[in-house]
Amino acid sequence: MSMERLFESVQQKGPVCVGLDTQLSFLPDYLKKKVGTDGEKIFEFNRAIIDATEDEAGCFKLQIACYEALGLDGMRAFSRTLQYARSRGNVTITDAKRGDISSTATQYARAHFSGDFETDLMTINVFMGEDAVSPYYSYLEQNKGVFALVKTSNPSGKDFQDLLVDGETLYERTAKKVSEWGERFIGKSGFSAIGAVTGLTYPEEFERIRPLLPHTFLLIPGYGAQGGTGKDIAGFFKDGVRGVVNSSRGLITAHKGKCEDEHFTDSVRAAVLDMKKDILQWL
Amino acid sequence: MSMERLFESVQQKGPVCVGLDTQLSFLPDYLKKKVGTDGEKIFEFNRAIIDATEDEAGCFKLQIACYEALGLDGMRAFSRTLQYARSRGNVTITDAKRGDISSTATQYARAHFSGDFETDLMTINVFMGEDAVSPYYSYLEQNKGVFALVKTSNPSGKDFQDLLVDGETLYERTAKKVSEWGERFIGKSGFSAIGAVTGLTYPEEFERIRPLLPHTFLLIPGYGAQGGTGKDIAGFFKDGVRGVVNSSRGLITAHKGKCEDEHFTDSVRAAVLDMKKDILQWL
Repeated sequence: MSMERLFESVQQKGPVCVGLDTQLSFLPDYLKKKVGTDGEKIFEFNRAIIDATEDEAGCFKLQIACYEALGLDGMRAFSRTLQYARSRGNVTITDAKRGDISSTATQYARAHFSGDFETDLMTINVFMGEDAVSPYYSYLEQNKGVFALVKTSNPSGKDFQDLLVDGETLYERTAKKVSEWGERFIGKSGFSAIGAVTGLTYPEEFERIRPLLPHTFLLIPGYGAQGGTGKDIAGFFKDGVRGVVNSSRGLITAHKGKCEDEHFTDSVRAAVLDMKKDILQWL
Repeated sequence: MSMERLFESVQQKGPVCVGLDTQLSFLPDYLKKKVGTDGEKIFEFNRAIIDATEDEAGCFKLQIACYEALGLDGMRAFSRTLQYARSRGNVTITDAKRGDISSTATQYARAHFSGDFETDLMTINVFMGEDAVSPYYSYLEQNKGVFALVKTSNPSGKDFQDLLVDGETLYERTAKKVSEWGERFIGKSGFSAIGAVTGLTYPEEFERIRPLLPHTFLLIPGYGAQGGTGKDIAGFFKDGVRGVVNSSRGLITAHKGKCEDEHFTDSVRAAVLDMKKDILQWL
């Protein structure tokens, strides 16, 4: 089961999720100058980062938008990156935030849990309610997992997620629903195959969400470029690591201004180790 | 501007949006038996439907999930279908319901408003608030448009969208925000480049949404296979056509059990004409 594998990977390698939200401008000069399509260069960049960090990374997350933006060539790079990372035993998360009616969700589940774009776990948007989530259940019974958006890391997340419904915020209401849907899928680690996305940029809200998600593993965006720090997460992890913390730009652009050759991954690896230390010091 | 073009197209050809949510099982036998990849066959199916219905269809909507489900081959069919439909002057909507933080939304806007997957209009999920919407603005100032999810057509939509916030439902609150964001982008037709998705399956809610969206053109799913009828929409269109009504399975599987050869499009065209008549009789 993918969520169990992620939990084990985090126990072994630590809670850093390396976000491969790769954009062409992030590439070191030597890769930019290589012969090949943009997608081929991006795949080489991703492969080099996977090779250099996989022993310290709990998992890799791919933001599919960065690949969609490059059209078919980008989708090829997306597919190749997932296949490469998984072939080496790494756990992958596709950050797609898909959300649609039942018949469409069935197509999205098929898209991301089989075939060219197969991943271990994916993010989903649950704004359309449980029938937008249930098409994923048959995959959860097999070996896949999802992370449902509960509280996002962006400033405008509050436009809707913080609205009060019967004295509780919408994100608390969402957390309760996600926890309830997940009860059927609790594995031997104690965590469900339905995880949750909760942004690190609003640490005080972690305390409100925490008791609502007793068996929910978290994907936590917002570290680094978005302003979150290891200290912000300390309270949430006080009983042990219950999630994986993503950083994308903060890690995969760590070489910018420093190194434009094959050794660029030294900077990326150092950034992964720094982030891991920053989080683990609070545990 | 795409929303103006859609409005004009609907005035000319009527309010039927043909949903190309194509699945392999929908294809007539003669196409299934052809040499080629699944994606190639799906493109041929779509092309035949576009040729047979474009003089009666206000626009074409592609549900991207159906194409993602077929991997790279499917994405190629998706790209070819959009290019074909647009090259003939049709207005296209990509039903992607993307929603993400600002930097990611920028990538999605680029993905769907330029390059291989270029479309005229796309659906977006606004659950993450205005900074998930604003990256689309520069495209709206040029010639593109978006439809924001306000009230979806699925039964579980009520799980969150119907929750009461200060005495009004979340979908009413969302409608107000969408209308407010759209004020900057009102064109000469009186409609904004920010439209809204409001499902047809809950007609009584149209009456509540109507006054909140004075300058918002609608994309209305839920007709046909999901249970909506022309009568359900009559109240909303009482001052003239203010949206486009989508049907997918109800139209593009109209030939099933009747015709499995090249003439399958006769049934699809007849279904489009029936739907158009069913809606226009109430105006």
